[in-house]
Amino acid sequence: MSSTTLLMPEPLHTACLTLLQAVGVPEDQASVVADVLVRADLRGISSHGVLRLPAYAHKIQAGLLKPDTPWTCLRETPTTVLYDAGMGLGPVAGLWGMKEAVKRAGQFGISAVGVRNASHFGIAAYYALQAVEAGMIGVTISNAAASIAPWGGIQAHLGTNPVCVAIPTQDEIPLVLDMAASVVARGKIRLAQREGQSIPQGWALDSEGQPTTDPQAAIDGTLLPIGGPKGYGIALVNDILAGVLTGSPSGVEICSIHDLQRPSPVGFFFQALQIEAFSSPQDFFDRIGTQLTAIRNSPRARGVERIYIPGEIEWECERDRHQNGIPIGSGTLKALHELAEELGVQIQL
Amino acid sequence: MSSTTLLMPEPLHTACLTLLQAVGVPEDQASVVADVLVRADLRGISSHGVLRLPAYAHKIQAGLLKPDTPWTCLRETPTTVLYDAGMGLGPVAGLWGMKEAVKRAGQFGISAVGVRNASHFGIAAYYALQAVEAGMIGVTISNAAASIAPWGGIQAHLGTNPVCVAIPTQDEIPLVLDMAASVVARGKIRLAQREGQSIPQGWALDSEGQPTTDPQAAIDGTLLPIGGPKGYGIALVNDILAGVLTGSPSGVEICSIHDLQRPSPVGFFFQALQIEAFSSPQDFFDRIGTQLTAIRNSPRARGVERIYIPGEIEWECERDRHQNGIPIGSGTLKALHELAEELGVQIQL
Repeated sequence: MSSTTLLMPEPLHTACLTLLQAVGVPEDQASVVADVLVRADLRGISSHGVLRLPAYAHKIQAGLLKPDTPWTCLRETPTTVLYDAGMGLGPVAGLWGMKEAVKRAGQFGISAVGVRNASHFGIAAYYALQAVEAGMIGVTISNAAASIAPWGGIQAHLGTNPVCVAIPTQDEIPLVLDMAASVVARGKIRLAQREGQSIPQGWALDSEGQPTTDPQAAIDGTLLPIGGPKGYGIALVNDILAGVLTGSPSGVEICSIHDLQRPSPVGFFFQALQIEAFSSPQDFFDRIGTQLTAIRNSPRARGVERIYIPGEIEWECERDRHQNGIPIGSGTLKALHELAEELGVQIQL
Repeated sequence: MSSTTLLMPEPLHTACLTLLQAVGVPEDQASVVADVLVRADLRGISSHGVLRLPAYAHKIQAGLLKPDTPWTCLRETPTTVLYDAGMGLGPVAGLWGMKEAVKRAGQFGISAVGVRNASHFGIAAYYALQAVEAGMIGVTISNAAASIAPWGGIQAHLGTNPVCVAIPTQDEIPLVLDMAASVVARGKIRLAQREGQSIPQGWALDSEGQPTTDPQAAIDGTLLPIGGPKGYGIALVNDILAGVLTGSPSGVEICSIHDLQRPSPVGFFFQALQIEAFSSPQDFFDRIGTQLTAIRNSPRARGVERIYIPGEIEWECERDRHQNGIPIGSGTLKALHELAEELGVQIQL
């Protein structure tokens, strides 16, 4: 049995800031990491929220993740840049990378930014939404530690390698497709494990290639890709864009952020695209409004109360939790308090 | 029971050329369309091959598809262009659009080209592979007539809206992920219908939202998206990029190419990306070679003979059929002969 505690985002953010600064992260960068983690919890993606902070802190303490993120430009064209994040913080490198993509797309129409050697960046949506805030379409891709087998294989070779596309709409709710190539994100299995719950059939195979409902067996085995060979292809393409193209580790070279013996660098691939390059914004917003309204009003299957636009559930969750607080699992809360004690700092949660 | 006839690609191409010219398509454009259709058959995607030609011809004869493709530039930035294909031929507009994307990416690093008001363009891979031939990464997206319901809905609202990513590799076999957002492409169901075969469970729902193995019921109902809400999201994002952003029809506005009462314009969205923008080509080819070799050698599940890279099966099929001929179904062959008779031209098949 697990319980949850309702916490407001501000004190949660402050606690993250305190913990990150205690392991040497400069305040401005700690604020970015805290923002990314708390926003995941706000959006209902607790598998990528403050639950992750102890792993980040332990990796920094082990000297395997740089608390002050290096940032070196390795290569550029008018519309593209490749950065090396030098084993620094994924959320910081992610924000800096996407902001550069937005800047270049503003000048040239479309842009792409690659980042090598960053750490896990949390929810991909955080970065794609930076483009939406600038009135653009944003795309975020990352690779990750291997958890999916090539189609027909039994050994994990590719990460769930998420892709997120965020698109501004006619109202304040952006369209956000944020998806792992697996049926579920690895973080959801990790959360089930932490909270002592089993997982549904169809999410994963054990190390012998058999279906399993045990989260530990799933973590030791492989995650099932969506659409079989299609999901395998998505994971591979994302690995090539974020890892192979950027010169970051790829495939089985990537190790887990929970491994305290080795660093766990990953790569990112960002794109930003001006709406104005293709349409007057007003025409675009009129057309997308017509399309999304028609979808929301589409006839529903029996028992279905609403049809959602991708990202709408997360948007409503974020609005609700900003007002009413975020339910944080007892396991996560305990881990944050233990970390504070370990670091000799006070957090008010 | 259906039978097949082995045909070499050259006479098949010549027959297509004859039939297309007979309905008024200029020779250079007819050659592009024939090339796209025959290449689909060469690659084993017969659902998108010469089987489609009678529908194209009938649409032209009905005055709903322009045999001589118009091509108007509506908007441009240094890295992006939007074209109107004026109800012209999809394969022609697709080739022209991707060639422009490749040209601009060569100048600026990355580019995107939108096309509105074209017709069905066949296999998305044909266009993405144009970028590979120029040493670049290519992305092709199209929208299509509605066949997928929004997640939780029962009425078709989105096309299978394919996306193809093609990536050059260390050897002559490019990586080609060419996928519809549905579990299977609509064309596969149409082929089963034409050849009098049933379809597997899990491909589609009938018009009441129930599982079906009857291809006609599936065509009247909706296709299941991969990964449930994820596939719905992919279909919607692709519709927005190819349709809403370009100002082409989107969602339920798109009608089938088989409809002889109305035109059936669709939109395309192409991207090209220089490898050199991010890596020396040699380093990239070394890294991707390491990755793909490791995948090919990955341990296999019992009964699996080989692990394939996306696009490898199609590449081997193409090489084999170039030498040994293409099996064309009797239904397709009959339809081509009937069309030739109808148009009063001779074809040698």
